[in-house]
Amino acid sequence: MEPFISKREAAEHVRVARYRAGISWAQIAEQLGVAKEWSTAALLGSHPMTAAQAAVVQELLSLDDAVVEALQMQPYRGPLSEDDLSDPTIYRFQEAVMVYGPTIKELIHEEFGDGIMSAINFQLDIQRRADPEGDRVVVTFDGKFLDYKW
Amino acid sequence: MEPFISKREAAEHVRVARYRAGISWAQIAEQLGVAKEWSTAALLGSHPMTAAQAAVVQELLSLDDAVVEALQMQPYRGPLSEDDLSDPTIYRFQEAVMVYGPTIKELIHEEFGDGIMSAINFQLDIQRRADPEGDRVVVTFDGKFLDYKW
Amino acid sequence: MEPFISKREAAEHVRVARYRAGISWAQIAEQLGVAKEWSTAALLGSHPMTAAQAAVVQELLSLDDAVVEALQMQPYRGPLSEDDLSDPTIYRFQEAVMVYGPTIKELIHEEFGDGIMSAINFQLDIQRRADPEGDRVVVTFDGKFLDYKW
Amino acid sequence: MEPFISKREAAEHVRVARYRAGISWAQIAEQLGVAKEWSTAALLGSHPMTAAQAAVVQELLSLDDAVVEALQMQPYRGPLSEDDLSDPTIYRFQEAVMVYGPTIKELIHEEFGDGIMSAINFQLDIQRRADPEGDRVVVTFDGKFLDYKW
Amino acid sequence: MEPFISKREAAEHVRVARYRAGISWAQIAEQLGVAKEWSTAALLGSHPMTAAQAAVVQELLSLDDAVVEALQMQPYRGPLSEDDLSDPTIYRFQEAVMVYGPTIKELIHEEFGDGIMSAINFQLDIQRRADPEGDRVVVTFDGKFLDYKW
Amino acid sequence: MEPFISKREAAEHVRVARYRAGISWAQIAEQLGVAKEWSTAALLGSHPMTAAQAAVVQELLSLDDAVVEALQMQPYRGPLSEDDLSDPTIYRFQEAVMVYGPTIKELIHEEFGDGIMSAINFQLDIQRRADPEGDRVVVTFDGKFLDYKW
Amino acid sequence: MEPFISKREAAEHVRVARYRAGISWAQIAEQLGVAKEWSTAALLGSHPMTAAQAAVVQELLSLDDAVVEALQMQPYRGPLSEDDLSDPTIYRFQEAVMVYGPTIKELIHEEFGDGIMSAINFQLDIQRRADPEGDRVVVTFDGKFLDYKW
Amino acid sequence: MEPFISKREAAEHVRVARYRAGISWAQIAEQLGVAKEWSTAALLGSHPMTAAQAAVVQELLSLDDAVVEALQMQPYRGPLSEDDLSDPTIYRFQEAVMVYGPTIKELIHEEFGDGIMSAINFQLDIQRRADPEGDRVVVTFDGKFLDYKW
Amino acid sequence: MEPFISKREAAEHVRVARYRAGISWAQIAEQLGVAKEWSTAALLGSHPMTAAQAAVVQELLSLDDAVVEALQMQPYRGPLSEDDLSDPTIYRFQEAVMVYGPTIKELIHEEFGDGIMSAINFQLDIQRRADPEGDRVVVTFDGKFLDYKW
Amino acid sequence: MEPFISKREAAEHVRVARYRAGISWAQIAEQLGVAKEWSTAALLGSHPMTAAQAAVVQELLSLDDAVVEALQMQPYRGPLSEDDLSDPTIYRFQEAVMVYGPTIKELIHEEFGDGIMSAINFQLDIQRRADPEGDRVVVTFDGKFLDYKW
Repeated sequence: MEPFISKREAAEHVRVARYRAGISWAQIAEQLGVAKEWSTAALLGSHPMTAAQAAVVQELLSLDDAVVEALQMQPYRGPLSEDDLSDPTIYRFQEAVMVYGPTIKELIHEEFGDGIMSAINFQLDIQRRADPEGDRVVVTFDGKFLDYKW
Repeated sequence: MEPFISKREAAEHVRVARYRAGISWAQIAEQLGVAKEWSTAALLGSHPMTAAQAAVVQELLSLDDAVVEALQMQPYRGPLSEDDLSDPTIYRFQEAVMVYGPTIKELIHEEFGDGIMSAINFQLDIQRRADPEGDRVVVTFDGKFLDYKW
Repeated sequence: MEPFISKREAAEHVRVARYRAGISWAQIAEQLGVAKEWSTAALLGSHPMTAAQAAVVQELLSLDDAVVEALQMQPYRGPLSEDDLSDPTIYRFQEAVMVYGPTIKELIHEEFGDGIMSAINFQLDIQRRADPEGDRVVVTFDGKFLDYKW
Repeated sequence: MEPFISKREAAEHVRVARYRAGISWAQIAEQLGVAKEWSTAALLGSHPMTAAQAAVVQELLSLDDAVVEALQMQPYRGPLSEDDLSDPTIYRFQEAVMVYGPTIKELIHEEFGDGIMSAINFQLDIQRRADPEGDRVVVTFDGKFLDYKW
Repeated sequence: MEPFISKREAAEHVRVARYRAGISWAQIAEQLGVAKEWSTAALLGSHPMTAAQAAVVQELLSLDDAVVEALQMQPYRGPLSEDDLSDPTIYRFQEAVMVYGPTIKELIHEEFGDGIMSAINFQLDIQRRADPEGDRVVVTFDGKFLDYKW
Repeated sequence: MEPFISKREAAEHVRVARYRAGISWAQIAEQLGVAKEWSTAALLGSHPMTAAQAAVVQELLSLDDAVVEALQMQPYRGPLSEDDLSDPTIYRFQEAVMVYGPTIKELIHEEFGDGIMSAINFQLDIQRRADPEGDRVVVTFDGKFLDYKW
Repeated sequence: MEPFISKREAAEHVRVARYRAGISWAQIAEQLGVAKEWSTAALLGSHPMTAAQAAVVQELLSLDDAVVEALQMQPYRGPLSEDDLSDPTIYRFQEAVMVYGPTIKELIHEEFGDGIMSAINFQLDIQRRADPEGDRVVVTFDGKFLDYKW
Repeated sequence: MEPFISKREAAEHVRVARYRAGISWAQIAEQLGVAKEWSTAALLGSHPMTAAQAAVVQELLSLDDAVVEALQMQPYRGPLSEDDLSDPTIYRFQEAVMVYGPTIKELIHEEFGDGIMSAINFQLDIQRRADPEGDRVVVTFDGKFLDYKW
Repeated sequence: MEPFISKREAAEHVRVARYRAGISWAQIAEQLGVAKEWSTAALLGSHPMTAAQAAVVQELLSLDDAVVEALQMQPYRGPLSEDDLSDPTIYRFQEAVMVYGPTIKELIHEEFGDGIMSAINFQLDIQRRADPEGDRVVVTFDGKFLDYKW
Repeated sequence: MEPFISKREAAEHVRVARYRAGISWAQIAEQLGVAKEWSTAALLGSHPMTAAQAAVVQELLSLDDAVVEALQMQPYRGPLSEDDLSDPTIYRFQEAVMVYGPTIKELIHEEFGDGIMSAINFQLDIQRRADPEGDRVVVTFDGKFLDYKW
């Protein structure tokens, strides 16, 4: 059988290939015609790509066929190891959820009633906002409200 | 010594007192003249209140003096137990961080260089956005960028 | 402030009161005019009840007012401790998810594409099916399909 | 000694080979004349196959001999890592067991007395049910009742 | 509502009351006309007792009514905390399962085929066997074989 | 240096080689003139074999020299990963220890005084007992009593 | 029923009562005519005392009857919480076992063959040894060798 | 770059090479002119060796150069995995620390005041003591007392 | 027996009493004539106080006698729960140890040889350093070097 | 695609190459013209290097190109496994944070108000301080104060 690699290994290949090619995540997104948040997630293994999308990236980053195949397969989403969660850049989001989780919960229930924000019908947006006291990272979690409905 | 309670116990008192008083988190915020995300977090134990703020809430919710005192004390922020993290409304945010954490990290580094979004110089915003296919929960994490600086 | 109890404590009160009253979970459901799976979950703390529903149960089970109040409050759903998860009756479901989880995942994706079964827009059904080799427990998880939709 | 692989590695081979062959899990089941839930579980390592069954799959998916051998070996069932349990499609079932576990337990005891649903004398069924508000995933856990019997 | 206690608290009451009464576990079993393994398990919270059985024990050990009620309620079986599992007398069984688990598994499969020993249709027997080199503890786990049966 | 393998890897080799040779664990034991529980445990890495014993098995199963060497080395006994402990066939023993652990402890103390059953001066016995309602797995843990002795 | 306390609570009573009485652990041991290591362990809940021993201690430390009763009951040995294990004075022993565990294992096997040092037929000795470079803590673990004996 | 191996891998090489060479840990120590406890620990990765010491061992055990290099490197001491800690020969020491930890702590404080036994300025001694009822393993932990000193 | 409290409870009393008295940690230290880092640690339960020191604090903060007694008792040092470790102010130190731990280790070994910084013969210093870009927290860990010395 | 290695693997290469080259961490820092704490952290994977810096190190240590590339890539900072955290040299810092964490927190709040020491705008300093009673390791954590600022 032809050799194959996991989506997690493919993500490592992509990270190195992008670095070597000197192409930004945003440029890849532009070539694909999708949001940079979606394509980066897909290239890191959190969404399956179509064959056409994977072919575009193969061209841009000179990826091996096994990587291209892996990018199209259905993911097991849960790619973060405990180690990754302690990376400071990621941990600050984890911390914000720990510190403000009950606040978020109370205010969602107050506005919408009993239910949740979907993490499936969901999109992510990451922006820089200029600020004289230091620019700001603005990350928006935008998901459909789903009410508990028996 | 006069009896006292922990901030975590105070948060339980506040939740019940607010329910009994029939006052919304947003109304409390309005009386305090602050963002509802800040005041709710403070009332649940994640920020210390000033004596004046605590007095306003005592009036609104008929809180015991021990609760009012606890609201003013310096918090240990980390109030979520493992149990709370598995509440579905909170878990979806945890899941989003697990699924999209590396994506967020790559895009922050691409835009800003090596560093993090502060979770301290930080504010949270929770909105409803009307949508014909079902209204959406829009939660914004807005923190100052801090670069690794030796 | 009037005394109050947590939803978890309320659930313990309900379990004992139901036992003392000699009334079945199904009879309570019938009085409430709802599915027995929903009302049992609500009485054990997984769904909030309306005041009217809580009043019906108070009448049936002679519950204290603090219990009745707790039943109406918004739950933190995640009531199972690790200890509870190792109870054999519950563990078999946990085991089935561990053994068949990837199978369920593959077949959902094959039938519906990339997405999940909602655990929010969701209902549970528990039946006995007569069988000459020993009657069977038939538990149905029925949730709306949600596709990953950016 | 001839090389061999674990059942877990064999499952990875099967997933890739099925993807490359463009054959559905349901088609494999049809060729084997068994339920798709059983054959998918077996191919992912949760049930041993007979030599005849494994030969059918080898033919369909062009599997290596080491994979075919692994499919016939007795499994250690417990294939899900913590990582897999956090995949959203699988986690929703985990969440349902956490949220409704005590409800399921109470209603099994009410209907059958003290005992459990077997996860061994057990079958799984996964269906799509059309619904104008969005089709539904219907997963049935069907196991023999076993009473505590000294 | 009348006060009540948990089965775990009831077990603590029973242990102390038995100690104070100077009655052995075997004598209690004899009064109940059941195996000492079953009655001890029931008194420690792992099986529900009938009202008649609980009344016999109340008489023997002068138990409070709340204890007697708790003994009759349906257990959540999983009473051992991590702390209890490290008690040396219990740990040796845990160790035996860790050291010999795969051996037990292989030999069950060899003798019976693919399946398990039931821990529900199950009985336990604990004996002393005289031995000139030191008497031996002989603990027998005796459960019905259940084969994987779709 | 000549290549070598761990006892855990050797156990995997033995399991596959036994399967390929079509020889039962009991037949291996018979050739070795020992109890099948001991030899199976030894072949799975829980006891060291003598050179003579290992040679007999090499002959029977056509094992590589590195496997034969590994079988003779002193084990680190604790071979079960958390994953293995959740295999249903092994888990039922784990569950029995969790459910009946305190019962076993109380009855050992009642019969023998303060002490433990040795898991070292210990033997295991696994039998099938015919039963019209379904044959039974009978597993006996037989260890010397050791009293706490300062 | 008369009130009772756990052995763990009793240990806390003993620690405070000893402090208040200004009596050393060694003096208690002397009054009891036993090794200070044994009596201290017993008073902290790791060994049951006889009624006579408990009475001596009650006299010395003015203990309540519930404490005296608890001291005589059979312990669940495993009293250290994770928190206690991180106390630096205890942790250094834990560290020594982590760092030197395999060394201890290899040398026991070399000297005695396959087996263990008993922690049941065991005694502990704690001494000060004068040393010009700083006195030393000398802790001896002395247990009977038990060989693996089927 | 020349290939290299970790100290943990080197320890595995040493264990096998010693077995093949038929030389005891004590004989190696004798050749090195050091205590067997120190040299065994060093060969298992817990202490760095000098080049001269490593050369002696290379000669005795015919080790590869990569092993010899690894033996001289600075260790990360913490070599025991959770799996190793459950090996019965090592676990008994872990158990002794769990059962007697608070006793050791109280008696160290009584004799020396507030402080610890060093695990760095520390030596280990392992002896056999003949005993008509069965020889004993005598393991001595001997470390300098360090008082808390601000 | 007179009531008593744990050192952990005493720490809670001290935190509230200090807040009510409006006295700073530094002022308490000044009254005691010790470093503020030492006295704060002692009042939070990490060091035992002398009777004289405890009396000074009782006077300043109007503490109950049970608190004063607890302050003098020998601590179990390890007071941080997992919850406390996730408080952002404390977590940043944890993070620094995770990120820079190996760096610290390499540079200690380079400068001093094989050994550790003592956390017992140790003092802590916390300062503000003015800085035009924002004042800085300067925390110094100062411990005696201890070399591995057999 | 050209082979690549992870930053963690690169760190292992650097450690061995530095050992072989006989160059100190301080000498490498001097060649780079940076603090030894920064360059050591970067070489162990905690900071990205510039191409120029990596080239200097390649020259000094004769590193492979894949190592040089890895040194320049963006790190996931969180390199310590649980195993590494238990290395005694690193653990003492972990212990200091556990024992003195609340003290550090209280004194930061007293001096600066509600906020944290940044671990990003942060520098580390490691010095030897001569002391007649034994030289001391002096490690300074120096980070910008960040106040909670909504």
